[in-house]
Amino acid sequence: MGKLLIVGTMAFDAIETPFGKTGRILGGAGTFIGLAASQFKIDSAIVSVVGDDFPQSYMDILKNKDIDLSGVEVVKGGKTFFWEGKYHNDLNSRDTLATELNTLADFNPVVPNDYTGADIVMLGNLHPNIQLSVINQMEKRPKLIVLDTMNFWMDNTWDELMAVISKIDVITINDEEARQMTNEYSLVKAAAKIQEMGPKYVVIKKGEHGALLFHKDNIFFAPALPLEEVFDPTGAGDTFAGGFSGYLTEAGNISFESMKNAIIHGSNLASFCVERFGTERMVDLEKSEVDARLVQFKELTQFNIELT
Amino acid sequence: MGKLLIVGTMAFDAIETPFGKTGRILGGAGTFIGLAASQFKIDSAIVSVVGDDFPQSYMDILKNKDIDLSGVEVVKGGKTFFWEGKYHNDLNSRDTLATELNTLADFNPVVPNDYTGADIVMLGNLHPNIQLSVINQMEKRPKLIVLDTMNFWMDNTWDELMAVISKIDVITINDEEARQMTNEYSLVKAAAKIQEMGPKYVVIKKGEHGALLFHKDNIFFAPALPLEEVFDPTGAGDTFAGGFSGYLTEAGNISFESMKNAIIHGSNLASFCVERFGTERMVDLEKSEVDARLVQFKELTQFNIELT
Repeated sequence: MGKLLIVGTMAFDAIETPFGKTGRILGGAGTFIGLAASQFKIDSAIVSVVGDDFPQSYMDILKNKDIDLSGVEVVKGGKTFFWEGKYHNDLNSRDTLATELNTLADFNPVVPNDYTGADIVMLGNLHPNIQLSVINQMEKRPKLIVLDTMNFWMDNTWDELMAVISKIDVITINDEEARQMTNEYSLVKAAAKIQEMGPKYVVIKKGEHGALLFHKDNIFFAPALPLEEVFDPTGAGDTFAGGFSGYLTEAGNISFESMKNAIIHGSNLASFCVERFGTERMVDLEKSEVDARLVQFKELTQFNIELT
Repeated sequence: MGKLLIVGTMAFDAIETPFGKTGRILGGAGTFIGLAASQFKIDSAIVSVVGDDFPQSYMDILKNKDIDLSGVEVVKGGKTFFWEGKYHNDLNSRDTLATELNTLADFNPVVPNDYTGADIVMLGNLHPNIQLSVINQMEKRPKLIVLDTMNFWMDNTWDELMAVISKIDVITINDEEARQMTNEYSLVKAAAKIQEMGPKYVVIKKGEHGALLFHKDNIFFAPALPLEEVFDPTGAGDTFAGGFSGYLTEAGNISFESMKNAIIHGSNLASFCVERFGTERMVDLEKSEVDARLVQFKELTQFNIELT
């Protein structure tokens, strides 16, 4: 089986949307990526850090998905990373009310021996130096390194971000961030400029407006599934990344055609994530539900025009 | 051959975008719809009104596409409808600088005898009473009536709009207008509510984010082709409508599957329209260019996931 190494936060989230408010619930990029990737027949491991306030029940949720947690450091007396946010009425924007780095501030990732030869590495949104450290621990060059990042690192750690970006294959980034990164409004031009920075594949996430994959002159687009209601967008981008990297790990094929399917699988899984608070929908998500929605994705996008 | 009856303005437009500024050039919903529909093997006619300031050379552009202009009234001593607008930097919004209705103010549409039995009627954005008058002149119920409208008519002629909407099959409307019309933020819910108002098919245009087709529980989505540069969005929605109705007229098939293709053809033609000012790109557009871009649309959206 293919091996996927995931690096990302495991966290407490407190979320408010127009539909309600949570207490401290399970969150974090690593968590969402891991849950999404667990839908595929792969071996996976998460590298992360938590405090000893992180409940065993949360660990068990991931363990029960057969995710290797030997790379999750539990800091004695430490507190787990905490994020609190409130979404605006359209759910397209949010205010961060609190960010407590806690144990994340001194996070020194250690890749488990079993995963230094992983086929694919999925670097969740984190300080670029942490992402780079993981790459440097790999015994051999993975078949594919995927990196997610955000505007915060562009604003505060540009040089470090450029250093890690030069070493990866696929970057996932949202549309506004792609524009900020390149000073190009056109996403076609932005994607071309980002490819010059290193990654041969650029995935631009447009939230409810879908996602674009760019590689040289090739472009592929997947819509977000139109839903009656988006309940909570938290983790949608990470779930997308988990579906994307999980599918490619199972497929063992990183061609552009295979990446198209990966984009669809990522979008499909993200459509479940946003239906409930946090990880709620993902924890018990069944293959039959995932497959049924893939059929919807086909009906949504596939047409039959024969060209003569 | 199938017959398409088009109702819509023929106009002078003056346009400013971040890329430049035009004088008074050829514009109008009827013009854009007619040019797009002329890409298909159909008989078509435009019902419209102009003043005698409307140049013969503009008439000839449409005549050379074999569009029947016997339903275009030329008002002696009258002036042609004029619109002037300036787009903001992101090209997603614009300010209207001038609207001179002129001959359009007293427009009394007359459907040519040859077209009172048309297969499909495409009602471009106009006062709903004008749209209704055209429907009432049809000798037999057309196979399909498509209507385009905008927020101006919702704000000022709600009852008249509802009267005509109850008699049509397909409405095309943009996302903000769909929300305004229904007080629903979710486009899935908005489309369901609009179907209760009459049209069995709802097309929601999202500009650079593509277009959605709703019919009962069926949804289809077509992206806009990602372009390096959108030069001038004027007429893109009308071009989409012309491609949509033109394709269906040629196909002679108004099933949901056929409408999927129509949405793709509409999106494809609109991707050309925005590449130059006004109708410039559409006037000499060749079938080979259109077909080549349809291939791009397939590559952009089609994938191959087999479900077991």
